[in-house]
Amino acid sequence: MKADIITIGDEILIGQITDTNSVFIAENLNIIGVTVRQIITVSDDKEVIKNAVDNSLQKADLVILSGGLGPTDDDKTKEALAEYFNSKLIENADVLEDIKRFVKSKNSSLNDRNIKQAEVPDKCKVIRNDNGTAAGMWFEKDKKVVVSMPAVPFEMKEMFENKVLNLIKEYFKTPHIIHKTIQTIGIPESELAEKLSDWEKNLDSKISLAYLPSPERIRLRLSITCDNVETATEKLDKEILELYKIIGKNIFGEGDVYLQDVIGEILLKNKKTLATAESCTGGNISRLITSVAGSSKYFKGSIVAYSNEVKQKILGVSPFTLMKQGAVSKETVEEMALGLLKVINSDYAIAVSGIAGPDGGTDEKPVGTIWIAVSDKYKCISKKYNFGNRRNVNVRLASSRAMDLLRNFIEGNITE
Amino acid sequence: MKADIITIGDEILIGQITDTNSVFIAENLNIIGVTVRQIITVSDDKEVIKNAVDNSLQKADLVILSGGLGPTDDDKTKEALAEYFNSKLIENADVLEDIKRFVKSKNSSLNDRNIKQAEVPDKCKVIRNDNGTAAGMWFEKDKKVVVSMPAVPFEMKEMFENKVLNLIKEYFKTPHIIHKTIQTIGIPESELAEKLSDWEKNLDSKISLAYLPSPERIRLRLSITCDNVETATEKLDKEILELYKIIGKNIFGEGDVYLQDVIGEILLKNKKTLATAESCTGGNISRLITSVAGSSKYFKGSIVAYSNEVKQKILGVSPFTLMKQGAVSKETVEEMALGLLKVINSDYAIAVSGIAGPDGGTDEKPVGTIWIAVSDKYKCISKKYNFGNRRNVNVRLASSRAMDLLRNFIEGNITE
Repeated sequence: MKADIITIGDEILIGQITDTNSVFIAENLNIIGVTVRQIITVSDDKEVIKNAVDNSLQKADLVILSGGLGPTDDDKTKEALAEYFNSKLIENADVLEDIKRFVKSKNSSLNDRNIKQAEVPDKCKVIRNDNGTAAGMWFEKDKKVVVSMPAVPFEMKEMFENKVLNLIKEYFKTPHIIHKTIQTIGIPESELAEKLSDWEKNLDSKISLAYLPSPERIRLRLSITCDNVETATEKLDKEILELYKIIGKNIFGEGDVYLQDVIGEILLKNKKTLATAESCTGGNISRLITSVAGSSKYFKGSIVAYSNEVKQKILGVSPFTLMKQGAVSKETVEEMALGLLKVINSDYAIAVSGIAGPDGGTDEKPVGTIWIAVSDKYKCISKKYNFGNRRNVNVRLASSRAMDLLRNFIEGNITE
Repeated sequence: MKADIITIGDEILIGQITDTNSVFIAENLNIIGVTVRQIITVSDDKEVIKNAVDNSLQKADLVILSGGLGPTDDDKTKEALAEYFNSKLIENADVLEDIKRFVKSKNSSLNDRNIKQAEVPDKCKVIRNDNGTAAGMWFEKDKKVVVSMPAVPFEMKEMFENKVLNLIKEYFKTPHIIHKTIQTIGIPESELAEKLSDWEKNLDSKISLAYLPSPERIRLRLSITCDNVETATEKLDKEILELYKIIGKNIFGEGDVYLQDVIGEILLKNKKTLATAESCTGGNISRLITSVAGSSKYFKGSIVAYSNEVKQKILGVSPFTLMKQGAVSKETVEEMALGLLKVINSDYAIAVSGIAGPDGGTDEKPVGTIWIAVSDKYKCISKKYNFGNRRNVNVRLASSRAMDLLRNFIEGNITE
């Protein structure tokens, strides 16, 4: 079956905000086996919205709208849908109750605009909104469905994940699909494809495989359409076991996790602490590690040693090393890691020094040259990388690779 | 005049990547006075692309496509446009030359697929690509225009900014519009609107004003359609002067700049250095400051003191202060700033300590309570903020407010 996504909002059409709602909706529809035919953004105009819905219904079985449900006069979606479905707007008691509760939770008081939001078309099924004042709507027509949701990402996501997806699965009797995602890092897509080619050839024909690459990582998504959840899950798990045999060291997690989550789990489990000494990454590793709620349990802190003075004075890197080998060298980055362990007294240290660019490169050490060390009190290992000449990409890749090196160090995957 | 934007790519429809190209194109069209009627994403399918172009041409004067010009078999845009415009694909010498030069610059060798990319429809004007192998195309039909560009953001942006925009201005004789953007921080939109209401009422009727809010800042864009650039610029400048009189302290820059750029310029100009001591922001301020190329000239480093141990041991915060006042207090954050100046010996210090959440809040200090101090060798000032209960928002807002407090401190805007 096919779906169209329509996002409504003048702010998108003037390039003021990026439409991330449609990305979220598309990804989740894809996961339940619904093909997204097109994504379209239109303005907050009643006739335009009606036309867009009508056009989409010609070719799609399901049309999902997001936006235009706010309390102000420029929000036109509800009126447009009421007219399109020859429906009257009537006050809905459930929605009014939700609005009252929400307004109260914000220590605010109910106004006329809020009350007007409780009016919904009489021909729709209401989808209640637990996080805001705009109710969702579900319309059916000739075995096709139109769903309308608010644009606030937080409200939309909750409504879509917890309510709309189930309604879609039920109404369209979508096939039961099980997905498992494997997160890999440190192996380019072409090499990964080559390493996996034999395995792929022998893959159960019912299982489909998707490569989902980003600069930092490649996700492998295995999907199977099934009648029996248990046997299907078994099949997937068997294949995932095979994957671990082939590229085990490059797999840092399963499901929807980031490296910083995995690092956090490992440190928590082992009751160990971490600190970082960062030069070219400028605090980005520290920022990523601390983006995880509860990271203060295992993260002690970071020394961002952007100047050689800080490398010497706080981390104790020898002036001789800095002069002889330079700030971007195996020796410096290892001294940074060991100095960090002394000064911060953590169990593990990550140290990074490199040339992020655009300036500072030489023939011997071009822009993108980055040294990473990881260490505990007994052992220190370091590796040299080159990620190219884009400053922000160098910072991103150095950060993820540094975390991955630590993961492999702790898990004992490194053989020098 | 009206434009439609069509982005082509299955990766967008499965939610794998976010379409940021259309945001860029929409924003830039808006700036030259072109109204974007709709943005639509369709799949890499020849018939679908032809249909989308045909539909758009019914209502739009200009249709801009991005995507589907790569060298692989699933790229269908060129074929679709050739068919739609009854055009033959013929090898173009200029394009072939561009491709050869590009391939050579990558130390790669020319293959059949590259050569095939030099074939373009004979009825289009070629828009040369300086950064890749896919040429852009410009078709004219009944006084309407269809433009096709590659999807790689870097290639598309360069082509659009430096070539396509000028072609559009020329062909459609778009009005000459001058824009000036003022960047404000630290004042909510409603308050800003109130402060500016008298000024807005008296604004020259030829000047239009747009509020462009984001969590960290609100941009004010003044636009004027003009025949005479000089008098129009004068008019805008006069209004901007008025703005400085009303909200001068909240203006951190003009044009397309970020706070970290402004801070960098001020420090460079004054030949001063900066360091940061970060607790709840976890290195994010340091990351932002170092995202600016050349920041090593004025940024010495950061101590991310995520644990009290680091606050004491490296920054010299007194254990008594930590015990009595707590880590999130005026006293602690000021001691962090002063300790930082001693240990890193920079001219200026920023220090931040707060409760980012979701845990750690108390009745007295709820989640979102954040103390920020800025200091030089003679003076230290600090302020308390509360940004609410979302962890990532707290980090973002604390970071931008801290940089803004430093800006005001250096510029002498703070009266205590």
